[in-house]
Amino acid sequence: MSDVKKVVLAYSGGLDTSVILKWLVETYGCEVVTFTADLGQGEELEPARAKAQAMGVKEIYIDDLREEFVRDFVFPMFRANTIYEGEYLLGTSIARPLIAKRLVEIANATGADAVSHGATGKGNDQVRFELGAYALKPGVKVIAPWREWDLTSRETLLAYADKHNIPVDRYGKKSPYSMDANLLHISYEGQVLENPWAEAEEDMWRWTVSPETAPDVPTYIELTYRCGDIVAIDGVEMSPATVLATLNQIGGANGIGRLDLVENRYVGMKSRGCYETPGGTIMLKAHRAIESICLDREVAHLKDELMPRYASMIYNGYWWSPERKMMQTMIDASQAPVNGVVRLKLYKGNVIVAGRKSEDSLFDSTIATFEDDGGAYNQKDAEGFIKLNALRMRIAANKGRV
Amino acid sequence: MSDVKKVVLAYSGGLDTSVILKWLVETYGCEVVTFTADLGQGEELEPARAKAQAMGVKEIYIDDLREEFVRDFVFPMFRANTIYEGEYLLGTSIARPLIAKRLVEIANATGADAVSHGATGKGNDQVRFELGAYALKPGVKVIAPWREWDLTSRETLLAYADKHNIPVDRYGKKSPYSMDANLLHISYEGQVLENPWAEAEEDMWRWTVSPETAPDVPTYIELTYRCGDIVAIDGVEMSPATVLATLNQIGGANGIGRLDLVENRYVGMKSRGCYETPGGTIMLKAHRAIESICLDREVAHLKDELMPRYASMIYNGYWWSPERKMMQTMIDASQAPVNGVVRLKLYKGNVIVAGRKSEDSLFDSTIATFEDDGGAYNQKDAEGFIKLNALRMRIAANKGRV
Amino acid sequence: MSDVKKVVLAYSGGLDTSVILKWLVETYGCEVVTFTADLGQGEELEPARAKAQAMGVKEIYIDDLREEFVRDFVFPMFRANTIYEGEYLLGTSIARPLIAKRLVEIANATGADAVSHGATGKGNDQVRFELGAYALKPGVKVIAPWREWDLTSRETLLAYADKHNIPVDRYGKKSPYSMDANLLHISYEGQVLENPWAEAEEDMWRWTVSPETAPDVPTYIELTYRCGDIVAIDGVEMSPATVLATLNQIGGANGIGRLDLVENRYVGMKSRGCYETPGGTIMLKAHRAIESICLDREVAHLKDELMPRYASMIYNGYWWSPERKMMQTMIDASQAPVNGVVRLKLYKGNVIVAGRKSEDSLFDSTIATFEDDGGAYNQKDAEGFIKLNALRMRIAANKGRV
Amino acid sequence: MSDVKKVVLAYSGGLDTSVILKWLVETYGCEVVTFTADLGQGEELEPARAKAQAMGVKEIYIDDLREEFVRDFVFPMFRANTIYEGEYLLGTSIARPLIAKRLVEIANATGADAVSHGATGKGNDQVRFELGAYALKPGVKVIAPWREWDLTSRETLLAYADKHNIPVDRYGKKSPYSMDANLLHISYEGQVLENPWAEAEEDMWRWTVSPETAPDVPTYIELTYRCGDIVAIDGVEMSPATVLATLNQIGGANGIGRLDLVENRYVGMKSRGCYETPGGTIMLKAHRAIESICLDREVAHLKDELMPRYASMIYNGYWWSPERKMMQTMIDASQAPVNGVVRLKLYKGNVIVAGRKSEDSLFDSTIATFEDDGGAYNQKDAEGFIKLNALRMRIAANKGRV
Repeated sequence: MSDVKKVVLAYSGGLDTSVILKWLVETYGCEVVTFTADLGQGEELEPARAKAQAMGVKEIYIDDLREEFVRDFVFPMFRANTIYEGEYLLGTSIARPLIAKRLVEIANATGADAVSHGATGKGNDQVRFELGAYALKPGVKVIAPWREWDLTSRETLLAYADKHNIPVDRYGKKSPYSMDANLLHISYEGQVLENPWAEAEEDMWRWTVSPETAPDVPTYIELTYRCGDIVAIDGVEMSPATVLATLNQIGGANGIGRLDLVENRYVGMKSRGCYETPGGTIMLKAHRAIESICLDREVAHLKDELMPRYASMIYNGYWWSPERKMMQTMIDASQAPVNGVVRLKLYKGNVIVAGRKSEDSLFDSTIATFEDDGGAYNQKDAEGFIKLNALRMRIAANKGRV
Repeated sequence: MSDVKKVVLAYSGGLDTSVILKWLVETYGCEVVTFTADLGQGEELEPARAKAQAMGVKEIYIDDLREEFVRDFVFPMFRANTIYEGEYLLGTSIARPLIAKRLVEIANATGADAVSHGATGKGNDQVRFELGAYALKPGVKVIAPWREWDLTSRETLLAYADKHNIPVDRYGKKSPYSMDANLLHISYEGQVLENPWAEAEEDMWRWTVSPETAPDVPTYIELTYRCGDIVAIDGVEMSPATVLATLNQIGGANGIGRLDLVENRYVGMKSRGCYETPGGTIMLKAHRAIESICLDREVAHLKDELMPRYASMIYNGYWWSPERKMMQTMIDASQAPVNGVVRLKLYKGNVIVAGRKSEDSLFDSTIATFEDDGGAYNQKDAEGFIKLNALRMRIAANKGRV
Repeated sequence: MSDVKKVVLAYSGGLDTSVILKWLVETYGCEVVTFTADLGQGEELEPARAKAQAMGVKEIYIDDLREEFVRDFVFPMFRANTIYEGEYLLGTSIARPLIAKRLVEIANATGADAVSHGATGKGNDQVRFELGAYALKPGVKVIAPWREWDLTSRETLLAYADKHNIPVDRYGKKSPYSMDANLLHISYEGQVLENPWAEAEEDMWRWTVSPETAPDVPTYIELTYRCGDIVAIDGVEMSPATVLATLNQIGGANGIGRLDLVENRYVGMKSRGCYETPGGTIMLKAHRAIESICLDREVAHLKDELMPRYASMIYNGYWWSPERKMMQTMIDASQAPVNGVVRLKLYKGNVIVAGRKSEDSLFDSTIATFEDDGGAYNQKDAEGFIKLNALRMRIAANKGRV
Repeated sequence: MSDVKKVVLAYSGGLDTSVILKWLVETYGCEVVTFTADLGQGEELEPARAKAQAMGVKEIYIDDLREEFVRDFVFPMFRANTIYEGEYLLGTSIARPLIAKRLVEIANATGADAVSHGATGKGNDQVRFELGAYALKPGVKVIAPWREWDLTSRETLLAYADKHNIPVDRYGKKSPYSMDANLLHISYEGQVLENPWAEAEEDMWRWTVSPETAPDVPTYIELTYRCGDIVAIDGVEMSPATVLATLNQIGGANGIGRLDLVENRYVGMKSRGCYETPGGTIMLKAHRAIESICLDREVAHLKDELMPRYASMIYNGYWWSPERKMMQTMIDASQAPVNGVVRLKLYKGNVIVAGRKSEDSLFDSTIATFEDDGGAYNQKDAEGFIKLNALRMRIAANKGRV
């Protein structure tokens, strides 16, 4: 174990990663560099700096990654209408590759030979952190304390903290759930959720009001798209992170974006999670709406068929893999004509498309109309179209196939 | 044209198909057999009989196909969580192959050599009717009057009706939309909907109340699944058609199942449609929930990847094709363990999963737990799992790939 | 029919297109522009010019498209290891979009409002020509004489030729087969081939010697790849068309590239075809070989899974569609690291990989070796890898699933 | 380690598994049951019995699994035209799940709590054995000595053998390659093959003559298919294993079935392998030929698109997974009409289709013909078919899309 000289730790400032910080020093006798990221999780970062300093850390990195997160990770993912297992908007999954990237960048900048994180050995996040780290810095050493140490219960963890004078806030309001938050979502696992028959408790949810308590009048918004990304809300241009933060606020106020799911983890077991993704829920619906008028049918279908695969790549931690990058090339290429405006009605948990328009629309009312189209479309063509499409089945039926 | 002796007409009793009935006799000098089906569209069928009789039809078929429709078409389709273009529940598409089948059966029973329908030359329905007919009776002659005649406006149609003494209800309350209804849904096209930027008018919707006017208290229901199909609601066993009718009633009362969509037709143009699918919307959500605990991960993912293809087959009219039947074999095989109960909360347009349980559940809380699992899962295994999954990317990175 | 003023005809100079030329003038009273392309079919083009002049054509286009054909069509297609229905190398299919493109370019240059071709109404080529033409010039009028006229037998065609003084070479050596040739392949259909049980006659084949008569000693060649394309043979850099012509010569001399196939046409029927694709057969094998060391596993597998779809797009005539172009983006992106040399042994119909090497190889003998690898790979990692991959199946088996 | 009481060892009788046998007893103090299978590898099994007895084994299983192997594993796999990475016929992969199944059956019969095998920690076979074992007996303990012990070189292995009086045949003719054989194939890895640029040595190959030394006259054979499986050769009905053994003999004599490949292992590295699969090479070609006339186009295409996924399942060891079984349902369902006869010409490495016929053929020469078809197909239908298929591209082009 003596071969680790310096390790970059993804450090939140909370109990777990504080214990890890100390444990790394004790166990590996190595120097620790802390890295704390603002991904929009809504927590102050300066306390993390103070704690790290108090524990003797000399190299402390605190980065505001919100714009990079939304611009280079969230938005590209939404271009594919990505959902995992039909429901999950991948809020946690999509943040991990960015953290992995920064861990590696900081390791390279500080001459560290290892990285460390606070993810457990049962979850997906360890995989996402580590696949990213290995892909970007193949010789890096990864230290995953939860897979190594014997501090397997909260009691032993607290005892370790006490023994090493790590300050613990025993009386603060602490959620009983295991949570993760960033600009895209907040997630909950554990406790009563471990019973899939049990309904989530109302006071668990933090970002959204319930549909019941949401306003009794709908909110209308207009989202402007350029190359598949939202660039303005109600006509006001704003940055990617501001777009998402704004949609979170509007969506949350209207009871939008709650999800209660049993999902399949990459490590092989099913787990129950609850998610709040107000802005993301709006974005998925709106993106499909603008694509519905701007995308060619076969392009859209091909995207739909490949989406589950793309979603699994992200869920499983393969953001930095060559196959994800290759597929992104195709997804991005499809978005050039995805420009225009979507009008949405938000009401008590519902995201309702109220209109879509685009200079690049392929919707042609002169052809689709039930009225006389002045010869734009020759109905007689349909007969040949059907006859030839039926031919192989007619031949088979003639030969007695059923 | 004299080669048609007897034609089976899909007859609704409305103006269009009444004119067609007359036009067939006039144009082809053939005998007409009418076929009117109760698919749950919510209209009396006896008036159709009376009208057909009045027009001199001797062979009149009026069938209640509701159970067959739900049991053999709707339920099998929902086993795949089928949605077209991410949104559409295929309410119209799934009814057409049953009508095609009955047209052919009646043609065989009555010795007819042709079938006819009232679908226009611009839509998908002509394709669905005719592909089905050709697949089941390859030598059949199909007559699609809308592609042949010159009655291209409502005025010429009414004039034709008047000239031939076809009774027209000019003063009844008639929706201005082009509509289609069956137990799964009701659809609207045309009029203001031809502008994708225009919001649908509230008084267009017929089956659902708006979320705004839905009850202020949620409704909870429990759906019991057996082999992927719902067999009971709130513990009361009921037939497939009764299940769907009941869910329509409950869903409609809670403002559930409205959809406003621009979709890509098989014949090549985009069209705007609005749909009400209250029961289907509930079924999709519930089926995913029961599958989430009962299905293996890779089985579920494979289903998800193939679903868009399967949806297109149905949308495009290939229900009776060998590829749809082949794929159905696989979908059905996956559903043996899909048994259990889903508890739903319905509230103002929202379908919220409140619980799922199953004797066949693969959810194992002793493994997924954040608590000590007593050795059910060895966290150290994760290291090797990650290392080998990362290997190809590490080798590539070592060789300088980025 | 009087609305056609000028038509660009894909003109070979043979009987069929000469009759079409005359028929267009007679039937449409329009001016005809002829377009004759050298795609490497191995025929003199000047006779076509003379014949067109003799028939009074004023605008005659004769283009050498060989380099464009191989560089922009054949090579991109081979980057995907494209084969239709497991066997067919798409020799005819890939030439049609280039001809469609030139027809449209010439129509635009000459102010023509229509294009015409000599493909029959039963085949794929009409679809390929016309889909290309419509995609590139949506308002173009397409004239397909074989679908319009009543010259349905060779006799009536000859009679028409005689009547209009079109010179017919009745005594020249004419193959009884329907053939198509370009730099990629030559194809044969019709005659005895219409019986799938009948073996093709030896004297049908034109480009290859039989394996039996090929040399008794093997030929070794080395192909150099850059970004997935062959840029040199045996170290000699050469242009794309020269690469393919050279491989055709070498392959043909070694009895390589014959194929006898029953394939499924896009228009719905099965047809029997025989193909000689000597260079293409070598290229497919070699490209897979260079990719085998240069491509990431998941990239390669994704390409393999999408290839049949991509092949169908080309076979069906959708080269100019947005979905083909989108997919090409991804395929091309994958080829950046596909550089190196493949050594092949060619012998009596066999293409045998004798070696492959690359600066971009991901093959790492220190890891794959059966010998001691000095710690490059930790065999113990495999246990965790297997355990977690097995977890979902173990949980299921524990619950009694079989 | 003392928790293992009895272990079933996949035992070949060779040095490696003899050392493992002894090592298991020494290390675990457990009883060992040996299992030796005849999968057609062409070795005597009785010496294995004698050796096991000599080493004190009391429960010895020696099974002839050849028919089960071909009937339940090889044939089902060939129904899908399965090839991994475009080339590999999965000869090793398909045998492992059968061995895993028997190991588990014997463990259940003998009350063993563990199974063991001689596969290394770098290869695919460990994964295939163990995934199978875990899927069929989830609580089984797997012992993989190569991942545990320190006998990492041949020298230490021989020393261990000497020390424990395990007889070693030091002077017998031993191939320097790592080999695996069964009725479907024989494989070679290691030695000079670790350099992908080096050509395989001629004297490595064991089952096939070289194309050069194969007979100068071709061999014709006829294969009869029933539901996708070969049931007779040249009209003589024979069992599955006899079919494959016969084709191996005929193919090997004609220089058929050699393959030299760099493939991607599931554990993450590339490896070079050479394979001889004479019968399998013939079967793949023949099966595609019979399918070409019997299968519907869309069924065939769907099979082709899913095949790479199915191949990966088998290659990676997921034969006993629910997703493979689900997919098999679909593959098998497609084979009902795959009946008939394929005639092949075998000549110096070439497998050439010389004819195919079937009562279930969908080939209809009256439609496909270039001659007058008497109205079986209306060429005019093609116009509408093309026009509607082009519609979306025309609309896009009209809007200026390129």
